[in-house]
Amino acid sequence: MTMIIRGGTVVNADRAFRADVMTFGDKIVAVGENLEAPHSARVIDAHGQYVMPGGIDTHTHMNLPFMGTVTQDDFFTGTAAGLAGGTTTIMDFVIPSPQQSLLEAFHTWRGWAQKAAGDYTFHVAVTWWDDSVREEMGILVRDHGVNSFKHFMAYKNAIMADDETLVNSFRRALELGAIPTVHAENGELVFQLQQDLLRRGLTGPSSHPLSRPPAVEAEAANRAITIAGVLNTPLYIVHVSCAESLEAIARARANGQRVYGEALAGHLVIDDSVYRSADPEFAAGHVMSPPFRSKHHQAALWHGLQAGNLHTTATDHCTFCAAQKAAGKDDFTKIPNGCGGVEERMAVVWDAGVNTGRLTPSEFVRVTSANAAQIFNMYPRKGVIAVGSDADIVVWDPEGTRTISAKTQHAKGGFNVFEGRTVRGIPSTTMAAGKVVFDRGVLMAEEGAGRYVERPAFVPVSAKS
Amino acid sequence: MTMIIRGGTVVNADRAFRADVMTFGDKIVAVGENLEAPHSARVIDAHGQYVMPGGIDTHTHMNLPFMGTVTQDDFFTGTAAGLAGGTTTIMDFVIPSPQQSLLEAFHTWRGWAQKAAGDYTFHVAVTWWDDSVREEMGILVRDHGVNSFKHFMAYKNAIMADDETLVNSFRRALELGAIPTVHAENGELVFQLQQDLLRRGLTGPSSHPLSRPPAVEAEAANRAITIAGVLNTPLYIVHVSCAESLEAIARARANGQRVYGEALAGHLVIDDSVYRSADPEFAAGHVMSPPFRSKHHQAALWHGLQAGNLHTTATDHCTFCAAQKAAGKDDFTKIPNGCGGVEERMAVVWDAGVNTGRLTPSEFVRVTSANAAQIFNMYPRKGVIAVGSDADIVVWDPEGTRTISAKTQHAKGGFNVFEGRTVRGIPSTTMAAGKVVFDRGVLMAEEGAGRYVERPAFVPVSAKS
Amino acid sequence: MTMIIRGGTVVNADRAFRADVMTFGDKIVAVGENLEAPHSARVIDAHGQYVMPGGIDTHTHMNLPFMGTVTQDDFFTGTAAGLAGGTTTIMDFVIPSPQQSLLEAFHTWRGWAQKAAGDYTFHVAVTWWDDSVREEMGILVRDHGVNSFKHFMAYKNAIMADDETLVNSFRRALELGAIPTVHAENGELVFQLQQDLLRRGLTGPSSHPLSRPPAVEAEAANRAITIAGVLNTPLYIVHVSCAESLEAIARARANGQRVYGEALAGHLVIDDSVYRSADPEFAAGHVMSPPFRSKHHQAALWHGLQAGNLHTTATDHCTFCAAQKAAGKDDFTKIPNGCGGVEERMAVVWDAGVNTGRLTPSEFVRVTSANAAQIFNMYPRKGVIAVGSDADIVVWDPEGTRTISAKTQHAKGGFNVFEGRTVRGIPSTTMAAGKVVFDRGVLMAEEGAGRYVERPAFVPVSAKS
Amino acid sequence: MTMIIRGGTVVNADRAFRADVMTFGDKIVAVGENLEAPHSARVIDAHGQYVMPGGIDTHTHMNLPFMGTVTQDDFFTGTAAGLAGGTTTIMDFVIPSPQQSLLEAFHTWRGWAQKAAGDYTFHVAVTWWDDSVREEMGILVRDHGVNSFKHFMAYKNAIMADDETLVNSFRRALELGAIPTVHAENGELVFQLQQDLLRRGLTGPSSHPLSRPPAVEAEAANRAITIAGVLNTPLYIVHVSCAESLEAIARARANGQRVYGEALAGHLVIDDSVYRSADPEFAAGHVMSPPFRSKHHQAALWHGLQAGNLHTTATDHCTFCAAQKAAGKDDFTKIPNGCGGVEERMAVVWDAGVNTGRLTPSEFVRVTSANAAQIFNMYPRKGVIAVGSDADIVVWDPEGTRTISAKTQHAKGGFNVFEGRTVRGIPSTTMAAGKVVFDRGVLMAEEGAGRYVERPAFVPVSAKS
Ligand SMILES: [Zn+2]
Ligand SMILES: [Zn+2]
Ligand SMILES: [Zn+2]
Ligand SMILES: [Zn+2]
Ligand SMILES: [Zn+2]
Ligand SMILES: [Zn+2]
Ligand SMILES: [Zn+2]
Ligand SMILES: [Zn+2]
Repeated sequence: MTMIIRGGTVVNADRAFRADVMTFGDKIVAVGENLEAPHSARVIDAHGQYVMPGGIDTHTHMNLPFMGTVTQDDFFTGTAAGLAGGTTTIMDFVIPSPQQSLLEAFHTWRGWAQKAAGDYTFHVAVTWWDDSVREEMGILVRDHGVNSFKHFMAYKNAIMADDETLVNSFRRALELGAIPTVHAENGELVFQLQQDLLRRGLTGPSSHPLSRPPAVEAEAANRAITIAGVLNTPLYIVHVSCAESLEAIARARANGQRVYGEALAGHLVIDDSVYRSADPEFAAGHVMSPPFRSKHHQAALWHGLQAGNLHTTATDHCTFCAAQKAAGKDDFTKIPNGCGGVEERMAVVWDAGVNTGRLTPSEFVRVTSANAAQIFNMYPRKGVIAVGSDADIVVWDPEGTRTISAKTQHAKGGFNVFEGRTVRGIPSTTMAAGKVVFDRGVLMAEEGAGRYVERPAFVPVSAKS
Repeated sequence: MTMIIRGGTVVNADRAFRADVMTFGDKIVAVGENLEAPHSARVIDAHGQYVMPGGIDTHTHMNLPFMGTVTQDDFFTGTAAGLAGGTTTIMDFVIPSPQQSLLEAFHTWRGWAQKAAGDYTFHVAVTWWDDSVREEMGILVRDHGVNSFKHFMAYKNAIMADDETLVNSFRRALELGAIPTVHAENGELVFQLQQDLLRRGLTGPSSHPLSRPPAVEAEAANRAITIAGVLNTPLYIVHVSCAESLEAIARARANGQRVYGEALAGHLVIDDSVYRSADPEFAAGHVMSPPFRSKHHQAALWHGLQAGNLHTTATDHCTFCAAQKAAGKDDFTKIPNGCGGVEERMAVVWDAGVNTGRLTPSEFVRVTSANAAQIFNMYPRKGVIAVGSDADIVVWDPEGTRTISAKTQHAKGGFNVFEGRTVRGIPSTTMAAGKVVFDRGVLMAEEGAGRYVERPAFVPVSAKS
Repeated sequence: MTMIIRGGTVVNADRAFRADVMTFGDKIVAVGENLEAPHSARVIDAHGQYVMPGGIDTHTHMNLPFMGTVTQDDFFTGTAAGLAGGTTTIMDFVIPSPQQSLLEAFHTWRGWAQKAAGDYTFHVAVTWWDDSVREEMGILVRDHGVNSFKHFMAYKNAIMADDETLVNSFRRALELGAIPTVHAENGELVFQLQQDLLRRGLTGPSSHPLSRPPAVEAEAANRAITIAGVLNTPLYIVHVSCAESLEAIARARANGQRVYGEALAGHLVIDDSVYRSADPEFAAGHVMSPPFRSKHHQAALWHGLQAGNLHTTATDHCTFCAAQKAAGKDDFTKIPNGCGGVEERMAVVWDAGVNTGRLTPSEFVRVTSANAAQIFNMYPRKGVIAVGSDADIVVWDPEGTRTISAKTQHAKGGFNVFEGRTVRGIPSTTMAAGKVVFDRGVLMAEEGAGRYVERPAFVPVSAKS
Repeated sequence: MTMIIRGGTVVNADRAFRADVMTFGDKIVAVGENLEAPHSARVIDAHGQYVMPGGIDTHTHMNLPFMGTVTQDDFFTGTAAGLAGGTTTIMDFVIPSPQQSLLEAFHTWRGWAQKAAGDYTFHVAVTWWDDSVREEMGILVRDHGVNSFKHFMAYKNAIMADDETLVNSFRRALELGAIPTVHAENGELVFQLQQDLLRRGLTGPSSHPLSRPPAVEAEAANRAITIAGVLNTPLYIVHVSCAESLEAIARARANGQRVYGEALAGHLVIDDSVYRSADPEFAAGHVMSPPFRSKHHQAALWHGLQAGNLHTTATDHCTFCAAQKAAGKDDFTKIPNGCGGVEERMAVVWDAGVNTGRLTPSEFVRVTSANAAQIFNMYPRKGVIAVGSDADIVVWDPEGTRTISAKTQHAKGGFNVFEGRTVRGIPSTTMAAGKVVFDRGVLMAEEGAGRYVERPAFVPVSAKS
């Protein structure tokens, strides 16, 4: 079926221009002024609105098993919430247990993701090392469309990767044409600081940020960057939350190294005063790692996006309800780490980024989809409004407003870190794979409609055939 | 007339892909695989080659009157040389004398440029200040398609702009939606160092770099950046030649400031050993400002391009013959400053950039045309292979080689700073405004075929009509 | 007459140790444990106290003629206030008008200073340039004990030194063995920002900091550093107030350049909220340049002192009464710039520095006297408790407290920027030139007792005679 | 017996001045002009010479057991060589094997050191961790005068300390008033790079520097700094060899952190071209870790000393003969790491530092003894010419020259990394503990005359008794 989005301003990473956008099936088939469409074509009016690539959230955890329970959002509710917010693709994480087969874990996650309403793809975590892991990384790249591997530098005594694993895995990724990514926090220091705080009786959620200060994050970022630099691999650092990590990235980039950084919507606008709330449930609701930081760090993150030292925006969407969070009410180290955001990211980044003049609309597209698509090799299928690209489109009403609340959100968990924030600039229509899945506040997400996105290995461009 | 470039790999700033490119008149009319073309269409075979946007040289001085003489290349020979090298657009400089009307100078330069074989546009220099200058800046922006103004921070007692002029002009540019640019060297220090060296009898060309050390450039860059930052204007710094200037740019950008930097092909590959040559003519032939620097600085400039702290590559093409250079044989400060390069830039940057793995082909396009077109508001007319864009195209043979020499160059002046360098990767065909102007070594440049490119003021993107 | 300070802990820049200190006449004659003193010796009990070199305030303006009026403190009241606070030497500024003879101005200031109660010496400002200035700089160094020259990079249309003057004067200082110093603010930007603010009707004192943002200071610091670096002179930057200036110093120092920085007691502990006071008199009372900054900058200044990137603490003591400040009530640019502090500096730096653990007592001595004495060639006459040194000594009671107030201060002007601050750690006794001039709250300053301190030119150390 | 050094220029860290120096027994008893000495006093003529504190080499390995063999220099020959070069105190390392008692190792080293001719003291390495180690650290500090603990971040599968050990040991040091020190290289990366090189057949000594690039050192330095910063301990980094490590130190210091750095004489003047020698024995003779670096890094290290970002100079004296070095002739990883230098350090640093104008004589004293004495709590017993200090004195002839050679050195091993270098500025007389041990080329070192120097824990200075 043909659809035509008429009269809007198309925004791509390189420019914005007046054009209609026509889709057929799941693809964009025409972009231009005053397109002729068949009579049967469904028309979406975009006058006074922007027409942008659907968002890519590079960092979510749907259906994540954790401490004997599981996150509130599964792949259906999570991707559906994303569609409501203009995000049409998520990048989730396969996290094998130490000693578990990567392939086995990959298939488990693939199974969970069958019900997804929007497109999805997977980073696969390397949480341990032996020859079988090396082997399975190859199979994942060659046969399963995985081109990024995740490493946790925190979470001692669990999934923490030591330097030996990092070195082995980064080098293997290089051989395979995959990109390593890291959660950068020095797990040993976190552990010691946690123990200190607990010993001193500081068991509440206000201890959480004290156990994970910026220096702890920056150290790990710098270490991962060094390893990548020495081995000559690119590197992607997830959820950069502080000025010091960002400086490590900027230093490496200024030295010619290919390092990419991700900022979370939450880190961009929420500060660490939340942990000092008198309401421990409220504070616990904000427990995630790295924690929210002071305003100084928020300003730095925006500068990073402006300068091109940070490249993507994501959410680390990982929802737990109050009952789950309560597991840590006597010991902050037992609070399940995670917050939502997949539904709010686009609007929050627009409101705090474009409305304030920090970002142009094209830069917004860059940091909400285009860069992600390029870094993770989904471009131009994703991340651009162009002929041949997936018909993943968000029609963006720059004057529309919404007051964010857990009461009205589509995601589950009953909590929202952006609670009460009124944003100007919201999706009026989201199209995914050529279908209207959200329109003027009505979500029409369809369970199982989402597709697994294969991401081929990186290969050098050659003019030869 | 329809032309079709068949079988190549199109390279844009965002990606490279197999596609044919069809042009009609002066525009690109189709880009796609296996395009159907009319039988009458002229076919250019691009198998095994890259098809890229024609180069934009952001910094040339054709027909420049200087010390009672004039540069060797006029707008015809200079732009023709550019076409032979794959550069289809030059950005030249209107340089009014102090007290001269900007408009008068602009029209003088427009007259000289009538004979250009390739497209051209002008930065206009602000070399003095009063209300008439303010007024004429407005006229140039509104009526003449000028959106960039140049300021010389060097050349004391001549065209040097002091801080008062910089402040006034930068602020005026902001009002008008134009971007200020600077030649960054502290003119007072250069003057004093020159006098010192002359006093000490060090009159030869080897004194030239000693009179313009990196710190002198970095100071001015930092000062211009501060002024731009305080006034909230963007800034473009021409011919960044040293690590210290680049660091000033990187610092500002990391702080969210919109600063852009230009690297010259010469600065990227030639080092300051040329000034220590036993042959004073050879040394004088390399006298330009800023001077060539040590290899340490070359490495830094490449890192700047990789990191996105530098954005464009140019040449400062400004050719003087040996007789002209000889004016300074007893006093290095009287050597006319300038070197060529408009013909060699693309090949030199490809060879030293892409062949070495420093840059991808897409990054090559970014720094040879796309960024320039975006920064100076000629995009997407220039800088991209896309439907509707100017048919300014270079078919690039990655296996072709050429040994650069003054003997075989198209530019005038009888000297070549890249003399003897063999590059791999050269244009096989250049198309400008839809016409083949260079093909397999044969230049078919036509006097007067070049067009003046109007560059409108910058305005915010709005979804409203 | 012999005096002996018994039982204290002597603190020098290199260490702290238990020792008695004996003086005779104006000199220290013995330092050691259990010194034997003549029966006639006056004994000062220092048990439980520190015995430190008298403070050196490197930056004061006593008796400064300004806008047809003169500062409240003359050399008697100003130095007396210093003695009450433990400061025994001030470094004041001779500020010739443009075109005025430096020598003439020097003698004028020497005349005013005759009444000083404490020792004093002069930086001489170079506010213009011609051969006579060059000549007189030589006379001042050779015949008058001046080894430092000051340059104002701000105050356009008044005493601002342009780059030409800076270059000439810095180079002359180098020849003479003198050190150049600068007030670093870009005068052109300050002027333009002031005009902007006035044009917009923002005429109150809250505009003062807006007209002098950190970037304006950092630019000038960086420029002076570059000039000094290119000419190979050392450089001393007065009243460094912001992180960005400090970074310029740290960068230069890390690159091996000999750059020194001064922090004002006020900048270390007072933030820019004072300018947002509802009481315009209060705000005007805090108008000085550079202005007070945000807490972020205060933290940076402390780090600078800890790291050795800043070297001295001073006050820029320059007192105006409310009536004088009122001259700018309708135009903030007409508020006489200046605040007091010569009396409070030592206690404020101790309280906020040593009590908090930021500085050790030895570091306190370094930044309150020893470094100043070394940088300005008064060492070891000043800045150390050692045999042969001047008997300028402060006995410091680390448990004594004082609540600072204009009501109880010895300085004039009726205003105190530290009003209401309670400090722990105060002088119990001040000895100047071997005489007790302040003891347990009683000031015994004697008009005219202060001496002019000649500071010889710097010469290389040689083992040869 | 009284001795008097007449007519020299005493150089301390804070200043240089003409004075005689009188000693009695092992102490300095008077410093002053024209001292009266008993007739019996032995007079040392120092006219035209400098009189400086004896050098402290903060980093030596005498008698080190290694790979079934032992270093060529034992505590007698090593300290004797030091005395010949003006170094009167060495700081050596007790290196327990993993699982070995620290106390047991300490006593072993104490036994070996009985024969020392010059004073010595020990850093004790923490190479593993459990409660007994924690306990023994306390005993060493309280009962044995140890206040510094060393950690190797390199040497995987041997003595490498992982983050857990670093965190535990740093924190324990803080409790005890001791300072942690680190050998900073990422052991995992070194190991992997070594394996890579060997796999590729690159088994010769030219592979040594390739296996330990600057980034590997900088990463570890940054990590140790972060751990120290988070735990709020000071930190001393041994043998800083590259710009990147130094930058990590400078960053931390600029942020107020108490980090100290040591430069080796060899790293200051020898570059990595030695590893590319055609003579593998010559190359192997230079194998030490970190390796010699390019000239860029040498310049940076000098800047570090000038800026106060580096504090001490040492040698890592650790001599192996050609036969020992030959153990690695087929595998560079088996070459015993180590070079000499204890005898040459003072002259090399003077010649390349003071003669070139990089350092003043006072700064020379700072970086060869005074800072070391202060950082490791031996001051003012060591590191200063003052009454009460140890009579460890070097009379320095600034015009004396010596051409360094293994043929004429006192140290053993038959190899000298400074071979053929002619230095100007050499010790004419060395006095240790009040005895002349070296005079005009004649070494009079006495086995067993050296004393163990106890270094008490650091405690806050208080005016209270
Ligand atoms: Zn994470
Ligand atoms: Zn996550
Ligand atoms: Zn220029
Ligand atoms: Zn130019
Ligand atoms: Zn000032
Ligand atoms: Zn002042
Ligand atoms: Zn070591
Ligand atoms: Zn060692």
